[in-house]
Amino acid sequence: MRRIGMLTSGGDCQALNATMRGVAKSLYNMFDDVEIIGFEDGYKGLMYADYKIMQPSDFSGILTEGGTILGTSRQPFKLMHTPDENGLDKVESMKHTYRKLKLNCLVVLGGNGSQKTANLLSEEGLNVVSLPKTIDNDLWGTDMTFGFQSAVNIATNAIDCIHTTAASHRRVFIVEVMGHKVGWLTLHAGLAGGADIILLPEIPYDINVVCDAITKRSKAGKRFSILAVAEGAISKEEASMSKKELKAKKRTEMVYPSVAYEIGARITEITGSEVRVTVPGHMQRGGEPCAYDRVLSTRLGATAAKMIADGEFGYMAAVKNNDIVKVPLSEVAGRLKTVDPNCSMIKEAKMVGICFGDE
Amino acid sequence: MRRIGMLTSGGDCQALNATMRGVAKSLYNMFDDVEIIGFEDGYKGLMYADYKIMQPSDFSGILTEGGTILGTSRQPFKLMHTPDENGLDKVESMKHTYRKLKLNCLVVLGGNGSQKTANLLSEEGLNVVSLPKTIDNDLWGTDMTFGFQSAVNIATNAIDCIHTTAASHRRVFIVEVMGHKVGWLTLHAGLAGGADIILLPEIPYDINVVCDAITKRSKAGKRFSILAVAEGAISKEEASMSKKELKAKKRTEMVYPSVAYEIGARITEITGSEVRVTVPGHMQRGGEPCAYDRVLSTRLGATAAKMIADGEFGYMAAVKNNDIVKVPLSEVAGRLKTVDPNCSMIKEAKMVGICFGDE
Amino acid sequence: MRRIGMLTSGGDCQALNATMRGVAKSLYNMFDDVEIIGFEDGYKGLMYADYKIMQPSDFSGILTEGGTILGTSRQPFKLMHTPDENGLDKVESMKHTYRKLKLNCLVVLGGNGSQKTANLLSEEGLNVVSLPKTIDNDLWGTDMTFGFQSAVNIATNAIDCIHTTAASHRRVFIVEVMGHKVGWLTLHAGLAGGADIILLPEIPYDINVVCDAITKRSKAGKRFSILAVAEGAISKEEASMSKKELKAKKRTEMVYPSVAYEIGARITEITGSEVRVTVPGHMQRGGEPCAYDRVLSTRLGATAAKMIADGEFGYMAAVKNNDIVKVPLSEVAGRLKTVDPNCSMIKEAKMVGICFGDE
Amino acid sequence: MRRIGMLTSGGDCQALNATMRGVAKSLYNMFDDVEIIGFEDGYKGLMYADYKIMQPSDFSGILTEGGTILGTSRQPFKLMHTPDENGLDKVESMKHTYRKLKLNCLVVLGGNGSQKTANLLSEEGLNVVSLPKTIDNDLWGTDMTFGFQSAVNIATNAIDCIHTTAASHRRVFIVEVMGHKVGWLTLHAGLAGGADIILLPEIPYDINVVCDAITKRSKAGKRFSILAVAEGAISKEEASMSKKELKAKKRTEMVYPSVAYEIGARITEITGSEVRVTVPGHMQRGGEPCAYDRVLSTRLGATAAKMIADGEFGYMAAVKNNDIVKVPLSEVAGRLKTVDPNCSMIKEAKMVGICFGDE
Repeated sequence: MRRIGMLTSGGDCQALNATMRGVAKSLYNMFDDVEIIGFEDGYKGLMYADYKIMQPSDFSGILTEGGTILGTSRQPFKLMHTPDENGLDKVESMKHTYRKLKLNCLVVLGGNGSQKTANLLSEEGLNVVSLPKTIDNDLWGTDMTFGFQSAVNIATNAIDCIHTTAASHRRVFIVEVMGHKVGWLTLHAGLAGGADIILLPEIPYDINVVCDAITKRSKAGKRFSILAVAEGAISKEEASMSKKELKAKKRTEMVYPSVAYEIGARITEITGSEVRVTVPGHMQRGGEPCAYDRVLSTRLGATAAKMIADGEFGYMAAVKNNDIVKVPLSEVAGRLKTVDPNCSMIKEAKMVGICFGDE
Repeated sequence: MRRIGMLTSGGDCQALNATMRGVAKSLYNMFDDVEIIGFEDGYKGLMYADYKIMQPSDFSGILTEGGTILGTSRQPFKLMHTPDENGLDKVESMKHTYRKLKLNCLVVLGGNGSQKTANLLSEEGLNVVSLPKTIDNDLWGTDMTFGFQSAVNIATNAIDCIHTTAASHRRVFIVEVMGHKVGWLTLHAGLAGGADIILLPEIPYDINVVCDAITKRSKAGKRFSILAVAEGAISKEEASMSKKELKAKKRTEMVYPSVAYEIGARITEITGSEVRVTVPGHMQRGGEPCAYDRVLSTRLGATAAKMIADGEFGYMAAVKNNDIVKVPLSEVAGRLKTVDPNCSMIKEAKMVGICFGDE
Repeated sequence: MRRIGMLTSGGDCQALNATMRGVAKSLYNMFDDVEIIGFEDGYKGLMYADYKIMQPSDFSGILTEGGTILGTSRQPFKLMHTPDENGLDKVESMKHTYRKLKLNCLVVLGGNGSQKTANLLSEEGLNVVSLPKTIDNDLWGTDMTFGFQSAVNIATNAIDCIHTTAASHRRVFIVEVMGHKVGWLTLHAGLAGGADIILLPEIPYDINVVCDAITKRSKAGKRFSILAVAEGAISKEEASMSKKELKAKKRTEMVYPSVAYEIGARITEITGSEVRVTVPGHMQRGGEPCAYDRVLSTRLGATAAKMIADGEFGYMAAVKNNDIVKVPLSEVAGRLKTVDPNCSMIKEAKMVGICFGDE
Repeated sequence: MRRIGMLTSGGDCQALNATMRGVAKSLYNMFDDVEIIGFEDGYKGLMYADYKIMQPSDFSGILTEGGTILGTSRQPFKLMHTPDENGLDKVESMKHTYRKLKLNCLVVLGGNGSQKTANLLSEEGLNVVSLPKTIDNDLWGTDMTFGFQSAVNIATNAIDCIHTTAASHRRVFIVEVMGHKVGWLTLHAGLAGGADIILLPEIPYDINVVCDAITKRSKAGKRFSILAVAEGAISKEEASMSKKELKAKKRTEMVYPSVAYEIGARITEITGSEVRVTVPGHMQRGGEPCAYDRVLSTRLGATAAKMIADGEFGYMAAVKNNDIVKVPLSEVAGRLKTVDPNCSMIKEAKMVGICFGDE
């Protein structure tokens, strides 16, 4: 009998269930004697052997369900070979569970940190297959991650709603979009929602450039301006600071709960405009996966199952030029796919008149 | 020829266009010689004679459009008989425009403040017919306002999305719903979204009662708690203060941009739980009107047109027990329809286990 | 211990689960010792004692889920006291199960046929409480049924989508809306979707009147006409036939799979217009319940639980002028709430220019 | 001054307006002296010089609007050099308008037939730039067309709704998806919606294989089966017939309005199952463009504008491996991108257990 472990790790997102369904349905179709072990709450379940034996019916009807039937937890991927609260080396605990349960393979659905751990476990000798999960689309080695398009839809819908109401008033509206280090989600939602100004972690902004763009619109008779701002948007000033200086600055200044409120206050200060802030927050991780993500997840899941059948371990299933391929975990681990400020998409966005606050 | 003025006033909401379409289509069908004058940006357009002569085609295709084709502005309904920036009495300016344009009637789409002004203009001798607009559903004299159900849908969708993601983690989530003085929107969205705790302006909360409810859920093995909190939610402490004390408190304490962040901080302080905040904000006024609102708006609009045809002025078209009726503006003006803490809906909500923070 | 039976009967609809959750959560909150028995597939489960003992967790997370966790079946409410396939009297079988399981009450969620059976069981001495389920909103005794607004949303969305595409072409579009005997769903969706022509079972149409309306629009430069047609739309000709004649007509004429195709063919024949047909069909029963239905269901469910606690049996929980009330089953059973061709809503719809094919 | 002509041709779809906005905003940003001429109702407007001079404001606020602000018409791309109803050669008429208006370039948004005409006009010496429009995603030379993902969303939503209701009953449901010759839309929606059986024009089906799959599911205790069937789904029998035989067969047999009803009748005949049919029809072309399409359209539009600025004519803007590139119209014209029955996506779909009726 084959026994396959499975876990979902890190911040949750849409299509986790759809992806697990893809893996599981394919495995059950290929093998008569496969058993799937579901670890609870991510790597923690693997460490402490918290698991349940899954049944085919567990994967039925979950294609459209948000969240994860296994639960998840953010885990400290740093210093993995350090003791947990019981004094046991975390990696050894995971390896121990894997071996005790006589797993043939561990399937990991996760983002950056989780892929790093997946790679570590693979290097330590476990059979690992992973799947690219994140609303941030910042995983190296894949053109697309599942969750991303669903999150884009939600953030875009937020901008759409603001658009309708903005047109009736004379104000500046800021929609804060998830993404501390990477701006793909803000860039896509900003373009799709027709935002006038888009601020990304990768393109430090000058608040005066931002305010000029607002004033210019206002002078041209536009009744409103809409900003799509990434959680990790950063000013040119801040970008030039050391980490220490940045921390000191955050400590001494008025603390806003999030960057959108801070930028909003600056805009009011400089332009005198009324500003309204919308923070969709965790909404962006929730709701049903969209059709695009469900297709992607099903394809990725089937491919992961095939990798298991073929004994090809140490890889992440990935999208490359519309095909589903496998990428070595060692290439994926620890690398971030960020928005290149000079990429063609940014150029196209600038062509239609979007301001990124940089020039 | 009949000449009808029309304006939309106050905070915008969904179905303003649908309602104007209902009025206009009915008028054009009933009379061969009717002309509709659209005032821009609310009462301001009436004061300064900023208007356009509408064509039937202007009302075509707007049934599903959010916002208002006429623009709107919040206006100071207090001290109406005071001079504007040109030293002219505002009410006299409006009456002057009405008479100069030889209007037969003025149609006002507005909320509380706007109805008050509508009543004043009616008392001063203008023919006024009004329509009940607000996402807050707090207008006296009508069971339902247009905009409300559309806003409920958006706030509910926010809670739905949070629900999906919440189930994967172990946290407390707060969704801040619009409503400074009245909690209908929060109450409906909270019920529809399956919130565990609902805090309304009408029911002052005890933070310890709120935290107890969270802790109880957590002890019962629930992975999360969701709060739907009205912008105007108020603690028992604050409710017992004078306006002056309340202002002083707000000034001296750490200023949060909105009540959700403040309550979130208290919950973390008391329970140690991680809290995440979502602020849909102006999203709740935006997007397409829902089917319910479009039906309501069309019916209200047709009824307003009939009132004009019948020469029945000084009334607001309203919903009473599923019928569209007319209510004297003098009854509507200056009265608020709030949530009675002892109403059957609150009781039913408590029966299914929802905590309102009061007991 | 209290033991409450529960079943869902007839065509399924949205918010069945939301309603059961409302009943169950209230019961579990009120009583420490309550047990809920869920019968499978409607009255059939009661007849054959197919049931499961429900747990509180079964009712968790189902507020937003379409369908019914208990399953349903259409059942022949006629001749209830006739033998089933095993020669047993059906009603006696149901009573036998009820007594064998020592139920304190049976909760029935159902439409017209199911309420009739509920009344029969009540008359035969069982403690019955029922809830008004149907997308048709045709139940006597309640202003609103759960499922209706969700179905309106879906049918409206169908018309909305057609509207967008229609405006680009020059055609006639027909959207067939559910409703064999009653037109509420078509009327509401037609109004909300901005249909130009609405055909209902209650208002027999003259095909020439319909075609005149189409031609008139086309001559006025409109690029398209959209018809919302109830499944049970009937021509004046057919309305004047006896049942036998009608059957004969249906047999000899070309058989269309549904009325929309037949009307479409007539329109092409008479006006020469290209016609396109959309049949959302069972989509209208599916998907998530909307916010409105979830609020309604929760309130109805809580009220049903209170009726059980108070020992008030033989009633249906219902909406009357925005309140949740109880209506004797004997009043509900066997009566249909149809659209009165002279009601104010039809008049208002005619005021905004909608053609009902009658004049 | 530069003068750019623009037209939308063929069946309409979502994101036509978004794409024109992308072109126009970029042109207005790049050139101070550009004038855009919008031809009405596709090539017909070019033939008969029916046009309007567009203003920048015409392209404002249309990012989210379905349909096309220019109107469209299906045009006979065959025999273009034949006389129209006035005896004028159609191609010469179009060239005449182009020259009379002194156009610098013609921008064509269209599908297969329209690209063929675009290529013809390019070969005859006009400066042409085209954009890939179709819900079918069947254009050669581009990985993706705008409109496709929006249509996938609608068809998927139809299957989703059916899924919810199907689970409550015991039936077979057929959702007919657009696509006479090409199955991409059905394939994607079928996968995303979790259809059990998918029938495509490219994979002739054996009705017995289909019925076996249904029976097998039913025996395994599944309460329902859902089929996603393309309009152009074809049986193995029909696939082996000559065009003449096929026509004869259609004439003599019972005529169903569409393939779904025919397949449904066969399934009932063979398996005895009750079948329900849903025909979303033109809904699939309507509604708002989704976020994905809006991003794609904006990028394609900006790229088309750049091609105009760079004087690169005779190309279609296209997607190739996530980049926006240009493809010679001569390569695009007259070629169809169909679903390869042996492609990896079909294989992956079969791995998760989907039946295509072929084996």
